[in-house]
Amino acid sequence: MSVLVAITGRDNTKLITKLQQRLPNTLIEQWPACKNVEGVEFVLAWNAPEAMWQQLPNLKAVSSFGAGVDSIDLSLLNDKVDVVRIVDEQLAEDMAEYVLTHVLAQKLRLKEYYLKQAQQTWKPKRAFKNKHVGILGYGELGKACAQKLINNGFKVSAWAQSGKNVTGVDIFYAEQGLSNMLPNVDYLVCLLPLTQATQGIINGSLLSKLPEHAVVINVARGGHVVEPDLLNALNNNTLRGATLDVFEQEPLAQEHPYWCHPKVTLTPHCAALSDIDSVIDQIAKNVECLNQGVSLNNTIDRTKGY
Amino acid sequence: MSVLVAITGRDNTKLITKLQQRLPNTLIEQWPACKNVEGVEFVLAWNAPEAMWQQLPNLKAVSSFGAGVDSIDLSLLNDKVDVVRIVDEQLAEDMAEYVLTHVLAQKLRLKEYYLKQAQQTWKPKRAFKNKHVGILGYGELGKACAQKLINNGFKVSAWAQSGKNVTGVDIFYAEQGLSNMLPNVDYLVCLLPLTQATQGIINGSLLSKLPEHAVVINVARGGHVVEPDLLNALNNNTLRGATLDVFEQEPLAQEHPYWCHPKVTLTPHCAALSDIDSVIDQIAKNVECLNQGVSLNNTIDRTKGY
Repeated sequence: MSVLVAITGRDNTKLITKLQQRLPNTLIEQWPACKNVEGVEFVLAWNAPEAMWQQLPNLKAVSSFGAGVDSIDLSLLNDKVDVVRIVDEQLAEDMAEYVLTHVLAQKLRLKEYYLKQAQQTWKPKRAFKNKHVGILGYGELGKACAQKLINNGFKVSAWAQSGKNVTGVDIFYAEQGLSNMLPNVDYLVCLLPLTQATQGIINGSLLSKLPEHAVVINVARGGHVVEPDLLNALNNNTLRGATLDVFEQEPLAQEHPYWCHPKVTLTPHCAALSDIDSVIDQIAKNVECLNQGVSLNNTIDRTKGY
Repeated sequence: MSVLVAITGRDNTKLITKLQQRLPNTLIEQWPACKNVEGVEFVLAWNAPEAMWQQLPNLKAVSSFGAGVDSIDLSLLNDKVDVVRIVDEQLAEDMAEYVLTHVLAQKLRLKEYYLKQAQQTWKPKRAFKNKHVGILGYGELGKACAQKLINNGFKVSAWAQSGKNVTGVDIFYAEQGLSNMLPNVDYLVCLLPLTQATQGIINGSLLSKLPEHAVVINVARGGHVVEPDLLNALNNNTLRGATLDVFEQEPLAQEHPYWCHPKVTLTPHCAALSDIDSVIDQIAKNVECLNQGVSLNNTIDRTKGY
């Protein structure tokens, strides 16, 4: 069996060297320069070309090169193929720190003060007092963020897919629950997986249910946000601000209105950067599992898509 | 007896109206339009003119209009005059939130990302990992900050004047203690009172003992920092950044190099803004104490100056 690396838009030299060191007896190839497609049983994928999948007749497992599997079109894979994702505990900690930092930055008006500094303007204002954070998605990352926010005196609500056993967080379910939660939220943090059901969920209808002083923080995927709707809300003063780490197109296009928008805080998909050694170790362990015929770690439920 | 408000550089109309409502039977005058200097027993002062003090023969108590008394030249007051300050519990909470927010903002490179956004540059970088905060001054504000930082996984050291009973914080004393603490500090937070002993304490000598990746956060008084030394350290790359809320001259002069400095995060003395109602209540209570001949609240030790 061999491992195929199919990650586009990134230099994978270092990754492949390290993975080969960790799996010295395994053939590791890179798409499209793959000599023996029939030998490929394990693919490490990120935005792999769709046409590739049908050329791999003996594929048994696919590992996403991230916490989400949204870069892989699951409908193109044989039902028996296992799909796994990266679960990095440090990621959850980094994500929680990013979310706390940017909630506080919005509460204390940091972007306003940066702009005022650039304009040489001295204008003290009180910080905002409201402390209610709503989290969309309550998986590992959502839970880590909720805990950190609660530890810092925030009230946390979360919108979740299914029953959760939680203390200290108000959980809302389904469409109606979301509509009930939004009017009371001061900071809305998106941590959903990107699926057909969540694509474009942050749209004009959702935004109209938030109070006007609310802030949107998107750290999930660009596809969750309908960009013209978000810009409308900011420009019409029905939303106070947005902190965005993820975008439909990355890097963000040079002409995009986010860059110069005074109410947008933009970071370059850096909220939770994977540690390469931890990622390689997880991939290598799953390759070993596949070789040994035992269950892989961190498989997703393909019917749910996460 | 009458109360004299001697606060310069600020419109005091609202303050005096509210204080008069709270003390309906007390004559409240404002410097310099004071008709009966001999009746003045209580002064509420901030940057009062030095020449004023000798014109008040029956002065018994002075209240600073802030948490510090550094705006009052104590040597001009008769030894028997009580000096009190404002102690606002919300101030400590707001200060701790400001310090946590700006330590996190420096750790996660927020200023760098704001500048990159303005330049339309996409350049993800890892957050800094170091988490050791050194606090200069360990009074009420220092303690509140330390606790909040510890709750968020930071290691905290503090430089204190005298013995403190503390768990979870390494306390350093005297000159030698400061020299021992500084080389291990990633974020240095100044929360000292401004006295002759602490004036200019953040100078070239102190800064040279910090590691090159360190950040200075000054939320005490502008007079604690020797500005040319701080700018030298930033420009010579022996200091990574500075977050400054207080300045020798406020508002900061238009030509000051801080405004445009890429390594300076500047806020307009807004870290902890007093709540006017809480402040008025404390002042009124002390006026009542003076009238009743009982001890005033929140008096300072005039030999120490804080």
